[in-house]
Amino acid sequence: MNGGAQTIQFHTKPVIIGGYSIVGPKEGEGPLRSYFDYVAKSDLFEQKSYEKAECKMHLLTIERAIDRVGLDEGDMCALLSGDLLNQIISSSFSARELDIPFLGLYNACSTFGEGLCLAAVFISGGFMKRVAVSTSSHFSTAERQYRYPLELGTQQPPTAQWTVTGCGCSVLADQGKGPCITCATIGKVIDYGITDANNMGAAMAPAAAYTIAKHLEETGRSADYYDQIITGDLGIFGSEMLVELLRSEGIEISHRHVDCGKLIFSEKQKVHMGGSGAGCSSSVFNSLILHEFSRGKLHRILFVPTGALLSKDSSLQGESVPAIAHAVAIEEQV
Amino acid sequence: MNGGAQTIQFHTKPVIIGGYSIVGPKEGEGPLRSYFDYVAKSDLFEQKSYEKAECKMHLLTIERAIDRVGLDEGDMCALLSGDLLNQIISSSFSARELDIPFLGLYNACSTFGEGLCLAAVFISGGFMKRVAVSTSSHFSTAERQYRYPLELGTQQPPTAQWTVTGCGCSVLADQGKGPCITCATIGKVIDYGITDANNMGAAMAPAAAYTIAKHLEETGRSADYYDQIITGDLGIFGSEMLVELLRSEGIEISHRHVDCGKLIFSEKQKVHMGGSGAGCSSSVFNSLILHEFSRGKLHRILFVPTGALLSKDSSLQGESVPAIAHAVAIEEQV
Repeated sequence: MNGGAQTIQFHTKPVIIGGYSIVGPKEGEGPLRSYFDYVAKSDLFEQKSYEKAECKMHLLTIERAIDRVGLDEGDMCALLSGDLLNQIISSSFSARELDIPFLGLYNACSTFGEGLCLAAVFISGGFMKRVAVSTSSHFSTAERQYRYPLELGTQQPPTAQWTVTGCGCSVLADQGKGPCITCATIGKVIDYGITDANNMGAAMAPAAAYTIAKHLEETGRSADYYDQIITGDLGIFGSEMLVELLRSEGIEISHRHVDCGKLIFSEKQKVHMGGSGAGCSSSVFNSLILHEFSRGKLHRILFVPTGALLSKDSSLQGESVPAIAHAVAIEEQV
Repeated sequence: MNGGAQTIQFHTKPVIIGGYSIVGPKEGEGPLRSYFDYVAKSDLFEQKSYEKAECKMHLLTIERAIDRVGLDEGDMCALLSGDLLNQIISSSFSARELDIPFLGLYNACSTFGEGLCLAAVFISGGFMKRVAVSTSSHFSTAERQYRYPLELGTQQPPTAQWTVTGCGCSVLADQGKGPCITCATIGKVIDYGITDANNMGAAMAPAAAYTIAKHLEETGRSADYYDQIITGDLGIFGSEMLVELLRSEGIEISHRHVDCGKLIFSEKQKVHMGGSGAGCSSSVFNSLILHEFSRGKLHRILFVPTGALLSKDSSLQGESVPAIAHAVAIEEQV
């Protein structure tokens, strides 16, 4: 790949040999309840703080993902992880308990896409044989870090999304059974000037549209090449905006597009525009999506986790919310 | 590389074709003043907040690094960046201004080592031709984020280090003039149970010792293979601890070891144990170290940025400070 291009083609294709997902009680009451591997009884995971709870959930997800594919820590060449907490402590403190080389990532809710892309590069390039990729988020840690203390009981505006309490981990290898990563398009930071930290869907949709359009252009594929184009956490409004933005460029994805943030909750659950968070796309990917691949219901998808690059300080200092999206093409092995 | 191993050998060796460094006024009064490319007149960089100042410094460093090697944004395949601010906003908001695919990283002050390693993988694997790697830190943003409001004038304990206001950016390519990366050892998270957030050197020294020992073991090299073993920001106490820890394992590095945190300030500058921060190793690397390579004074170094994986919340919740270090072997081309 030369300057200007954004898509990496993997000639040796890394295989996603398995995954594991854990979610909180609210997510466990949603439409995907039967797909998640483990639904926690309480948001606190028997810990003393929500931050420790997120970390426990994150660690358990990684351990069980590795265990499920019949490997152990010593077989892994690297762990690539990220989360939304300041200084990604959920990931770092999980890595502390594991005897695996660690690389911490942060691209907000698109981090799982970043991780899959980097893991594919390590494996396809012949540098590593097996890599674990994980991301998490937690409603209560995110809410009190980014917005208000939970005890205030602040009402959310209708454009808000509900941060998913969840974690997903995928294990990638140079060989094995499972879908493989055929190419990946690394996103650029796109800023449409949205300043409302309660309207993440609108902030992220332009980044998703940009990356998807770039991916189709650079691969010469049409949207119909894929069974589904699956974004991370645009929610209801962001999804509509994505479809419209691409339509204005002559790309029609409405019949192919689904969004993890829309899939994970039902409308009855009062989550406004849907789910969000770094654990939204990773928990849905490592439950529903891998399941549909194994059942032969999905053959080719473009997986596009989306991230809003804000902090509490950046919002308080009047900054807009730039966003990014990475696209990973995942296909059944032929 | 198989599970258990931590060192990647680069058969095709990525070249560090250039770099650029910017520091604040205090760093510009230190022993390395003549090596830095740009010394800011004020910590505020003519901005309205210290966070915006760090971002401006970060962006300018990337732009000038790319310009110095005769390239422009469109020639770059990726930007790999990180910093210490919550949600790495200094990096993300810099990337917003640049037309370059962006991957955000976070391994605290070892992030520059993580970035060099990933850039080397991208280039050596044939996935990309040119990659920029940058990290920054800023005394005033770090102090008020991790410790106390600046206005309090809190006295620092004698074990404290002074966060460097500085940024460094390296440009790596598949060919060109400059030293090359021959191998890299990815660190694991090591925790010796240090709970004092004002004693980062003690928290990080065990991680540095672990990675250096692993690197020498896996490459079959002795410490004397390298002209210098250069850690990121252990400071005075952490450096002594590193030497002792390795000595207890039969590895003598005292005659080879230098530390960027010790190099950047003089004792007269009242910085206690020395400099620290994600911009410490990157600003020293992209000034003094690249300069000594070009003058032929350095031929082979092991560069080991070190990071303490804490957040304000993790400290307040009684957690210890785990740490990580990545080692990158940089050698002149033969």
